[in-house]
Amino acid sequence: MGELVVLRIGHRPGRDDRMTTHVGLTARALGADRFVLASNDGRPLTTIDDVTERFGGPFTTDLVENAGAFLNEWAGMIVHLTMYGLPIQDQLPRLRERCPPGCDLAIVVGAEKVPFSVYELADWNLAVTNQPHSEVASLAIMLDRYSDGTALDEDFIDATHRVVPQAAGKRVERTQE
Amino acid sequence: MGELVVLRIGHRPGRDDRMTTHVGLTARALGADRFVLASNDGRPLTTIDDVTERFGGPFTTDLVENAGAFLNEWAGMIVHLTMYGLPIQDQLPRLRERCPPGCDLAIVVGAEKVPFSVYELADWNLAVTNQPHSEVASLAIMLDRYSDGTALDEDFIDATHRVVPQAAGKRVERTQE
Repeated sequence: MGELVVLRIGHRPGRDDRMTTHVGLTARALGADRFVLASNDGRPLTTIDDVTERFGGPFTTDLVENAGAFLNEWAGMIVHLTMYGLPIQDQLPRLRERCPPGCDLAIVVGAEKVPFSVYELADWNLAVTNQPHSEVASLAIMLDRYSDGTALDEDFIDATHRVVPQAAGKRVERTQE
Repeated sequence: MGELVVLRIGHRPGRDDRMTTHVGLTARALGADRFVLASNDGRPLTTIDDVTERFGGPFTTDLVENAGAFLNEWAGMIVHLTMYGLPIQDQLPRLRERCPPGCDLAIVVGAEKVPFSVYELADWNLAVTNQPHSEVASLAIMLDRYSDGTALDEDFIDATHRVVPQAAGKRVERTQE
């Protein structure tokens, strides 16, 4: 099996902490194997690792200094999510053909400004609508659609806590000490 | 035609501004008609209204003081997105049967703590996975799936700017003065 990695670039420490945490948690919840943050500040990773500890994995996080170096070394496919790209709904059949779920895929998610080199390094620049909205929303729809919907049925192992779905209210079970 | 409204509750001014803006922009991009923020601070609405002005609508925003009062007056269906709810993939066929796209639907999106009354007021408490991740991700997948994918093909009118999809790079056209 290959690896499904989400790479967060352009993170501004402090200002982007919550957004970046949400990107990482979305990656984990929707079937990615690893979240890589390109930054010199790994604080958002702590929250994500804590969630993995409680709600299960496997899911890992990494901090890299240089996004370009990471992408240059990456041997699999690269999809960059951007509102300027080609409509995901048109391109997905071809992407799934060239890189079916289970192949090595890096999904790059930017913050405000993304350097042009990333557009060039990507095999696909894909837009989840060509409207300005949210990198978290784009990533969620990308993962859901790329997995053909199975992302929502992901299993997690080694959890200490598990949510028990309820029609109304909250129920969290402890699965182990 | 009914109205598709996204209601953001539990917004903490300052701390949640960006998250709330992303919720609103996601609502707009993915086919909602209106974004309602329950708060005494409407700052996040400015950014959303600016985007509508540039990239088109129709899309409106409203500030309400009391989320409970809004929901009590709402005559349509109410879906509350929460990690504690029932799996969206199981419930969606029944929701679409009782409230097909085009019916009056309010989608409630919380921040940290959601009062129990909201769970009770909702016709459905739905989970986009029972994992902790992001209200923006949940809303995106809810809107995409509820629309049966047509949310990504939404048309916008009265735009002054339009993104022209590119395989690499950025292109924004001015459509009118």
